[in-house]
Amino acid sequence: MGMVAKDGGGYVTGNFIDDLPTPALLLDAATLDHNLKVMSEALPGPRLRPHVKAHKCSELARRQSKLGHRGFTCATVREMEGLARAGLGDDLLLANEVLDARRLGALDARVTVAVDSEETIDAAAMGGVREVLIDVNVGLPRCGCDPDRAGSLADLARRKKLEVRGVMGYEGHAMLIEDAGERAGIVAASMDRLAAAHADVGGDVISAGGTGSYACNGFATEIQAGSYALMDTAYAKIGSPFRPALFLLATVISRSSNYAVADCGLKALGMDHGDPTIDGYRVWFCSDEHVTFGRAEGDDREAVALPRVGDRIRVVPAHVDPTVAYHERVHLVSGEGVVESWPIDLRGW
Amino acid sequence: MGMVAKDGGGYVTGNFIDDLPTPALLLDAATLDHNLKVMSEALPGPRLRPHVKAHKCSELARRQSKLGHRGFTCATVREMEGLARAGLGDDLLLANEVLDARRLGALDARVTVAVDSEETIDAAAMGGVREVLIDVNVGLPRCGCDPDRAGSLADLARRKKLEVRGVMGYEGHAMLIEDAGERAGIVAASMDRLAAAHADVGGDVISAGGTGSYACNGFATEIQAGSYALMDTAYAKIGSPFRPALFLLATVISRSSNYAVADCGLKALGMDHGDPTIDGYRVWFCSDEHVTFGRAEGDDREAVALPRVGDRIRVVPAHVDPTVAYHERVHLVSGEGVVESWPIDLRGW
Repeated sequence: MGMVAKDGGGYVTGNFIDDLPTPALLLDAATLDHNLKVMSEALPGPRLRPHVKAHKCSELARRQSKLGHRGFTCATVREMEGLARAGLGDDLLLANEVLDARRLGALDARVTVAVDSEETIDAAAMGGVREVLIDVNVGLPRCGCDPDRAGSLADLARRKKLEVRGVMGYEGHAMLIEDAGERAGIVAASMDRLAAAHADVGGDVISAGGTGSYACNGFATEIQAGSYALMDTAYAKIGSPFRPALFLLATVISRSSNYAVADCGLKALGMDHGDPTIDGYRVWFCSDEHVTFGRAEGDDREAVALPRVGDRIRVVPAHVDPTVAYHERVHLVSGEGVVESWPIDLRGW
Repeated sequence: MGMVAKDGGGYVTGNFIDDLPTPALLLDAATLDHNLKVMSEALPGPRLRPHVKAHKCSELARRQSKLGHRGFTCATVREMEGLARAGLGDDLLLANEVLDARRLGALDARVTVAVDSEETIDAAAMGGVREVLIDVNVGLPRCGCDPDRAGSLADLARRKKLEVRGVMGYEGHAMLIEDAGERAGIVAASMDRLAAAHADVGGDVISAGGTGSYACNGFATEIQAGSYALMDTAYAKIGSPFRPALFLLATVISRSSNYAVADCGLKALGMDHGDPTIDGYRVWFCSDEHVTFGRAEGDDREAVALPRVGDRIRVVPAHVDPTVAYHERVHLVSGEGVVESWPIDLRGW
C-alpha cells in the first residue's frame, strides 16, 4: 500500500506489519478489545478508574472512556497533562504524591491529587489544586499515611480550603499472590485499614485496587486497574481472564549455526522482570539493541530451525509497563495489517 | 534565578539544581571532563571512535569531537541520523546490522555500516550505502560472521560496488572480567580472530574494543569505547580510571517510621543490572515511579536519619545506558548549579 503516514518522531511507512521498521511495539486489536470489554462488564462506568501508567497512551484511554470510564488514574504529572490535553480531563486522579503541584493547578481539567503528609497538603494548596484524596498505607511499604493519621490530615486539608473527596489505598502487595483465597484475604485486610481511615476522613470516594484484585475488592467505590488492558505475562499465573496483548516485532539481523540475533534489546524492553520470551526458542541474553536466542531445549521443539536473516519474529516482554515507556508509538494490529498507530504520548515526567 | 529556558518536551525552570523538576538526570561536569580527558590522552584523535549508544546525546558527542575524535560509532539508525543532523557526520559507523539501509543511504554524512551476511550486504547496496566493514564474530555470541567467511563476504561486497574499509569485531565478552591479565588474554585471542579475518579482507580499518579493553587492545586501529564518558558502576571493579558521572535527582515524596519513598522508579532507571543505589541507605525496591529505601544495615550508618519529605536525594543507576534512554534531557551540573541542559536526542530507532 506504500506510504500512508509519516509523523514527527519517526516513520510509519505502510499499513502492513511487514512494512514497519523494527523494533516496533504491536498491540493486538482483538485481544485489546477482549480485555477492555471483560473489565468493562465486570466494573461498569465509574466503578473503574483506569490507570494509564501501564499504557501511557491517550488514544487507548479514549477507548476506555468510550466504554464509560470517564475518570482516570495517573502516576505522573505528565500523564495528567496529556489526558487533559486530549480532552479526557473530566476527573483525573494523580494517585501519587507531589511536592510541586503548580503544573497540576494550571490544568484545564478536574484534578484530584493524593496527599499523605502536611508537606504534600501544603503543596496541593499552594499549587492551586482544589481536590485531594487522603492516601492511606494499607500494607505496601510505599506512599500513604498510617490509617490513624488520615483524619487529622483531612482536617488539615480542609483548613487549607481543599475539598477532601475521600481516601485511596493501593493493596499492591496482594496483586500477584497466586492463591486466590490468600489474595482475597490480604485485600480484605488492606480494605479494613482503608475503612478505618475512611471513617475518620469521610467523602464519597474510596479508590483502591488493581488488575490482581478487581474481582475481589468489593469495598472500594472505584478500582484503579491498569495492567488489564495490555496485560503482563506475570498475571497469567493468577488465572486472570485478561490476555497478553502487547509484543515487540523484531527483525533477525544475524545468524550463526546455533543462535540467531534480532534487533530488539534491553533499551526496547523493561528488564526488571527478566528476559523477554520468544515462542519456540530460548533467549540467551539481551544487549542494548540485540536479543540473542537459540533453539529451545528439552522439548520436541528441538528440531525447530532457527529463523533466517531478514525474518520477523515476535518478542514478548517480561514486564509491559517499562517496555511501553521506551517507545514513541504502538501499532494496533489485526492479522497482517496495521489498523492505527498511536503515540505513546504520556511518557516522561 | 527564575525561568531561564523552556523547551518543547518539558520544563527547565532555573539554573540551580534545586529548581529542577524530578526525576532529573544529572551529569557532573567535572567528572565528565575528567573522563573525556583521560580517554583522549590514552587514545588521541582517530585512535578513538566514541560509541554514542551510552549517552545518546549529540551535545556530548560534540564535546568528544572537539577533543579530536571526529568519527563516531552508533548502534541504531536514529543515532546515525541525529549525529548527521548535528553536523557530526564526518565518519559515522553503524556497528550493527540492518536489513533496510535506505535511511542510512539518505544521510548527508559519511556512512559506513557493518555487514556479516549476504543479506546485509544486499541491504547496504540497495539502500544506497557506499562503505562497509565486515563484522567478525570474535567470541561474543552476537552479530559477526565466522572469521573464515570474512574474505568471501568482502569479495561479495566489492562485487556489489561497496567500498570495504576493513573489519570490526567487538570483544564484549571480555569487558567486565575483573582480572586484568585474564581480560587481556581474552582480548588478545579475540584480536587473533579479527587479524585472521583482516588478512583476508584487507582495508585500513580494524575497529574493535570498548571501555573494558581500551588499554589492552593494541591491535585495533580504532577503539569503539562509549561507557567511559558517563561510566557505569559495573566497571568500578575492573580498576578503571574513569568515574561514574551520572546520577538521578529525586525528591522524597513520602516517609514512614522506617522507610522513605522518592519519585524515581523503574521507568527512570535501567533495571537489567538490578536496583539502583542511594549512598547511606538501603534500597528496598523500585516501583514504576517510586523507590522505597530505608536505613543502611550492619554499619555505623545505622544512626543516619531518613530524609524528610521534600528533601532531594541522588540515586545512582545500576546501568547507565538503558537509564539514559528513558530520559528526554540530561543536566550538566557543577556544585549547586545547572551549567547546561542537553537533549537526549538520539533515542528511539
